[in-house]
Amino acid sequence: MNIDQLIKYALEEDVGTGDITTLACAAEDAYSTARLIAKERGVLCGLDVFRRVFEILGGGVIIDAHKRDGDTIAVGEVIANISGLSRSILTGERVALNLLQHLSGVATRTRSFADLIAAYPAKVVDTRKTLPGLRALDKYAVRVGGGANHRFNLSDGVLIKDNHIRAVGGISNAVKLARELAPFTLKIEVECESCAMADEAISVGADVIMLDNMDTAAMTETVLKIRELAPKTVIEASGNMDAKDIAEVAACGVDVISIGALTHSVKALDISLKFD
Amino acid sequence: MNIDQLIKYALEEDVGTGDITTLACAAEDAYSTARLIAKERGVLCGLDVFRRVFEILGGGVIIDAHKRDGDTIAVGEVIANISGLSRSILTGERVALNLLQHLSGVATRTRSFADLIAAYPAKVVDTRKTLPGLRALDKYAVRVGGGANHRFNLSDGVLIKDNHIRAVGGISNAVKLARELAPFTLKIEVECESCAMADEAISVGADVIMLDNMDTAAMTETVLKIRELAPKTVIEASGNMDAKDIAEVAACGVDVISIGALTHSVKALDISLKFD
Amino acid sequence: MNIDQLIKYALEEDVGTGDITTLACAAEDAYSTARLIAKERGVLCGLDVFRRVFEILGGGVIIDAHKRDGDTIAVGEVIANISGLSRSILTGERVALNLLQHLSGVATRTRSFADLIAAYPAKVVDTRKTLPGLRALDKYAVRVGGGANHRFNLSDGVLIKDNHIRAVGGISNAVKLARELAPFTLKIEVECESCAMADEAISVGADVIMLDNMDTAAMTETVLKIRELAPKTVIEASGNMDAKDIAEVAACGVDVISIGALTHSVKALDISLKFD
Amino acid sequence: MNIDQLIKYALEEDVGTGDITTLACAAEDAYSTARLIAKERGVLCGLDVFRRVFEILGGGVIIDAHKRDGDTIAVGEVIANISGLSRSILTGERVALNLLQHLSGVATRTRSFADLIAAYPAKVVDTRKTLPGLRALDKYAVRVGGGANHRFNLSDGVLIKDNHIRAVGGISNAVKLARELAPFTLKIEVECESCAMADEAISVGADVIMLDNMDTAAMTETVLKIRELAPKTVIEASGNMDAKDIAEVAACGVDVISIGALTHSVKALDISLKFD
Amino acid sequence: MNIDQLIKYALEEDVGTGDITTLACAAEDAYSTARLIAKERGVLCGLDVFRRVFEILGGGVIIDAHKRDGDTIAVGEVIANISGLSRSILTGERVALNLLQHLSGVATRTRSFADLIAAYPAKVVDTRKTLPGLRALDKYAVRVGGGANHRFNLSDGVLIKDNHIRAVGGISNAVKLARELAPFTLKIEVECESCAMADEAISVGADVIMLDNMDTAAMTETVLKIRELAPKTVIEASGNMDAKDIAEVAACGVDVISIGALTHSVKALDISLKFD
Amino acid sequence: MNIDQLIKYALEEDVGTGDITTLACAAEDAYSTARLIAKERGVLCGLDVFRRVFEILGGGVIIDAHKRDGDTIAVGEVIANISGLSRSILTGERVALNLLQHLSGVATRTRSFADLIAAYPAKVVDTRKTLPGLRALDKYAVRVGGGANHRFNLSDGVLIKDNHIRAVGGISNAVKLARELAPFTLKIEVECESCAMADEAISVGADVIMLDNMDTAAMTETVLKIRELAPKTVIEASGNMDAKDIAEVAACGVDVISIGALTHSVKALDISLKFD
Repeated sequence: MNIDQLIKYALEEDVGTGDITTLACAAEDAYSTARLIAKERGVLCGLDVFRRVFEILGGGVIIDAHKRDGDTIAVGEVIANISGLSRSILTGERVALNLLQHLSGVATRTRSFADLIAAYPAKVVDTRKTLPGLRALDKYAVRVGGGANHRFNLSDGVLIKDNHIRAVGGISNAVKLARELAPFTLKIEVECESCAMADEAISVGADVIMLDNMDTAAMTETVLKIRELAPKTVIEASGNMDAKDIAEVAACGVDVISIGALTHSVKALDISLKFD
Repeated sequence: MNIDQLIKYALEEDVGTGDITTLACAAEDAYSTARLIAKERGVLCGLDVFRRVFEILGGGVIIDAHKRDGDTIAVGEVIANISGLSRSILTGERVALNLLQHLSGVATRTRSFADLIAAYPAKVVDTRKTLPGLRALDKYAVRVGGGANHRFNLSDGVLIKDNHIRAVGGISNAVKLARELAPFTLKIEVECESCAMADEAISVGADVIMLDNMDTAAMTETVLKIRELAPKTVIEASGNMDAKDIAEVAACGVDVISIGALTHSVKALDISLKFD
Repeated sequence: MNIDQLIKYALEEDVGTGDITTLACAAEDAYSTARLIAKERGVLCGLDVFRRVFEILGGGVIIDAHKRDGDTIAVGEVIANISGLSRSILTGERVALNLLQHLSGVATRTRSFADLIAAYPAKVVDTRKTLPGLRALDKYAVRVGGGANHRFNLSDGVLIKDNHIRAVGGISNAVKLARELAPFTLKIEVECESCAMADEAISVGADVIMLDNMDTAAMTETVLKIRELAPKTVIEASGNMDAKDIAEVAACGVDVISIGALTHSVKALDISLKFD
Repeated sequence: MNIDQLIKYALEEDVGTGDITTLACAAEDAYSTARLIAKERGVLCGLDVFRRVFEILGGGVIIDAHKRDGDTIAVGEVIANISGLSRSILTGERVALNLLQHLSGVATRTRSFADLIAAYPAKVVDTRKTLPGLRALDKYAVRVGGGANHRFNLSDGVLIKDNHIRAVGGISNAVKLARELAPFTLKIEVECESCAMADEAISVGADVIMLDNMDTAAMTETVLKIRELAPKTVIEASGNMDAKDIAEVAACGVDVISIGALTHSVKALDISLKFD
Repeated sequence: MNIDQLIKYALEEDVGTGDITTLACAAEDAYSTARLIAKERGVLCGLDVFRRVFEILGGGVIIDAHKRDGDTIAVGEVIANISGLSRSILTGERVALNLLQHLSGVATRTRSFADLIAAYPAKVVDTRKTLPGLRALDKYAVRVGGGANHRFNLSDGVLIKDNHIRAVGGISNAVKLARELAPFTLKIEVECESCAMADEAISVGADVIMLDNMDTAAMTETVLKIRELAPKTVIEASGNMDAKDIAEVAACGVDVISIGALTHSVKALDISLKFD
Repeated sequence: MNIDQLIKYALEEDVGTGDITTLACAAEDAYSTARLIAKERGVLCGLDVFRRVFEILGGGVIIDAHKRDGDTIAVGEVIANISGLSRSILTGERVALNLLQHLSGVATRTRSFADLIAAYPAKVVDTRKTLPGLRALDKYAVRVGGGANHRFNLSDGVLIKDNHIRAVGGISNAVKLARELAPFTLKIEVECESCAMADEAISVGADVIMLDNMDTAAMTETVLKIRELAPKTVIEASGNMDAKDIAEVAACGVDVISIGALTHSVKALDISLKFD
């Protein structure tokens, strides 16, 4: 339902009061066929939302896909054959491609990170660093690229950061207050900058520990300590991770590695729609 | 008005049914101060929208800015001092930063392209390759970065592309039909792949010619031809432009160079909000 | 999409919490046939929106039309045969007729003006003097009646009026600033009250000149001057035009004549829906 | 609340993605004064909605009114002095005037009809023949012009018309069914084309009788009959009433005379906003 | 139309960003059958809204009902067989049941009151004491349970209460002012606490008299007085009515008895959905 | 933000096109004072939402409260003094009271259950059995009454019920699939009807076990088993709990007891607003 609203909003924004050029040039009943072609290698993601743009526009556009979300596509490969009323294809093309290219960009980047740590149990996860309206889609693209998801938003997870700890005067108090307010079905996560903080958080029952900007030595030590104290604890590594250090972090034994760039700095995958 | 809707939407998406962690940890009347700090060099853009997030959330948050949109910011520089109810700052931080970092990313990229062609009269312009809801902000960021704007959407400009020409059977017919339907206040642009096409478009009164994916020799020839036939015509160069070829294209004498990557492949500028 | 919203809004407003009379009197599956009849001579406009009202209401109402938008209808002529669930026809009738009669009124008035200047190249155009929500439909009705359209709204055309000129200190400055801010795809129009003003506007590159409330002598002189300086310029005549002077204005050689009364003072065309 | 939505909708429609001309020409903090001037004689109506447009736009615009709704205004009279940010005045002017001129048109027309029957107890009333979104405002303008209101919509009044009677097989049955379904707080009105029909309607307890398209002889007879049978009954005369016959109808002794043209064929009153 | 909005809102609220459990456990094309079973005796109400929840969700869910709204259902009875995509049934179940159980609760309670006064002409009617969004459904459930409806909201009925009388200085003045402002199609009701007040209200033409919190002696006297003065007057009894006194009140000869508890204190009827 | 939408919706529903009675009887600037009085003993809840209704309506209404949410109120106690424009108080009264009485009803019922198990560590928790739009408010009222909250909706908690288990073929598979799809920050709950099922759920890592409709012997045995296997597991008892059995269930050693009737069968607390 939300995806539909996003698409409608995007179409309103892009069409404005009418696609004059298309209305002038394509007859009401003109029919076209086209191909959706990869111009760059990557992981495809977003075919459903691409298709949905045209369903919402109407015009009987059929997307006959040869690939699925998660498939690797090579330069020049035909992803889908498209046919339907020319007006619908011409008017919807830009909105549909903008979303498909963005989501394929997210999946492609996630896959590249996931591949770097394939030898470890750790998983790549996303963050809340997404642009308005795109969170559900971006999180889907992360899963398609082989990553997993962190909490969706501020209400479906408790994450006590340094500012919260400072505001309330200590980890123990923060965890206690959060447990009282939050539904009992949510895990409580605490951001820790040292092994001692993690120790305190575990002692008051934190379910997840985030290790923020630690070097690998400190991280390894803290992971071992946590595993000893409370083996079911989920351990997250965070901080401006990039390709060169992710494997090192994974080697420290953490469960998940969160990476903001998966969604805040996406390179759109080049895909084009060519009329036959 | 639209910006407010976007922010409200982003807050709904990010806050969900309530920022539990903050509600649990920060007292209703707790007050904080913080600093907005550049972690990377670039062009600042989006202070108004950053401020507006907190106005919409309430809580009397004051953003005392030391920089303005368009200023270059250096690593470590304090962009603004922030003060207000802790709950508002904590809850709004992510949405506000997501937008500020994205827009500063757009402005920074635009500036870097604009600098490359500073010696020529040509201007960098944007495209319709923006994510849903961000078009107005992205176009503003392009101007802040020293670029100019192409049409906003499909209703405030006529751009006859190859598919339109094919649909209607020729440039002359397309231009004629568009002129009949469109408000007389809009210019008519035609995408041309050859000098001959540009010639025909000019002969039927096109106001703007887009040269698509031409090599520099063809482009130079076509520009000269157009200048001779109709000196007031605006000439646009398009195609997957990147840093290495933009100066060459500008040297061909075009008026505007449109670059999709300004908005579809943005690298967010790293900016962080630190509580004191 | 906008039209649907307008119709839904109109239905909500008119139906309120339920059409009690119809719900009480017409059985859920009762079926009726009816005729749509012209009670007055004029130009028909709005059949699609009339039909759409019933599609939105549901009930399988079929509008079998014998006329098309733009046709002249005579007193007593049957415009369409209607059949479907009685409840839908009864409940939708008023909203559907209100729109059809209004739009036919706009088209009829436009046609009467257009006929008066049929001997000249000038076209009748509309203004922004429309009631909320009706702009797109009214502009369509103007085209159906044989007129053309001015800009749709404040963002898809630049029109520098006397107040803008005063605010900024002169025509030249106003045109320069507008060119910097506006997408390069929009024409720039300047309202001129004298030949000298038109001269200045042309000299700084205005694309359209509006001659406001000029007498025919001044208008003729100014038109000649503009044609000499910049033959591609579009020339618009404006001012409280009515039937008696429009031909005189057209004779001055202008391209378009804008008339607010086309949409702000519409006499609804009398059309009725009679059950068989 | 609804009025605000209407105004916001009108502003969105008219401003689109931004009033480029004004943004280019008027500085952010430029301030203007202006006068609202009558160009035509009539009854003023709509000052609150005119004022509300600018409140919604912001910019501290002050409307210092010298007239009130319901006042007669003469050609050249200053209705109000206006001051505030130039941008707000320039951008809101058209939407504000469109509504003010329309509503003053409705009030002026209503007043002219009301004056014609001032000697009789009958009142002029409106109908549901209003354009989308304008019903509440139009009904207010009718009261300002000296008229009274018919039901607001299909849910706050029962009006059994000929089609309903036919659908259900007779007046008595229709009234009985409506009484069962409708809240007991609503009066039941029946449209009657003859004295016999009115007689039947009264006998089953109708509270209001509408006499549709009767000549004055039949109308007089029916009114007398109804007064004899049930003196509290409200009697309405309907049909394409115009200035020449309204006094004759009033003379028949009816209570209310409904006139569609009050709202479906409005001549906007000419009012203009002049910058000083 | 409103019902759809209510259902969509309820689904958004209940589904949030996705029914994770169901998405994980039920395959996209898995199909289930289930039964809707009464766990408690009562009056069924709400099958249409129950069905509509699944239509809005999609998934081809078919509700094969064996009962209709208004039927008495016994413990263990199968109300309907349900079949369709497992995901739709699982995700929609709670919202659909919440509404069905609530409306059946309203109808059951209304029936029990109606049964108590079956020997009298008086009818049980509802009030405006409903929860947001449920008014139309609750009023429908009251009719299904054998009651009738009071006014829908503040705009489709005039009800002058003691506070209004005090504000305006007396019943006569209040009735006069209401008659001027209200559409002439609405009845005017006055809340009276004594026979004298009812007398005054009748003398100025009130159409409905509400007797508030009177004992039965005073009520009987007042009813007789009103019947003598104006036999067509509708008489309403109000006040915190419960099962033990409703028959006594009905015996006083009133026309309608309004009971807030029908809708403000509903006991949901126990109904469950069991997968086969 | 959601609360505001709910209130606006409730006001639109209740006010319709205008509170005619109040507009007719109370002058625009008339001012009133009133008292909010308890007519029944219970737990007060909802003062903020009560106050917000009048803030949204405008009119400067001041609620000077003598009680706070959570306070016990006795019959006849003055909860608050109210003053402001008469029109606002009269028009907002019903919507404000409807919400206040409902929420106080929820809090009162929750308190009565909580008191019954005060001797045990178990907590009363709510369910998803709430009416549309009221979930956040109802959950707040449960906390005010001394209860705790279960998951807010289907996206912020995983609860694998018997139908999910059947759909996927066993508990182990269901837990595994849920863990893959859900954000790692959510606990996984499994509904178990036997000790063996609980055993299996614990063995695959379930975080919460719901014991559904077990008798006390089975419940006690299962609780002991779970405590032995995985002491951190949260144990929930569910099933049509009422006052007579809740203490027995608490004595079995569970952590939370969920009760649908807290929100699906609320008896509104009687509170009235009396003008002075």
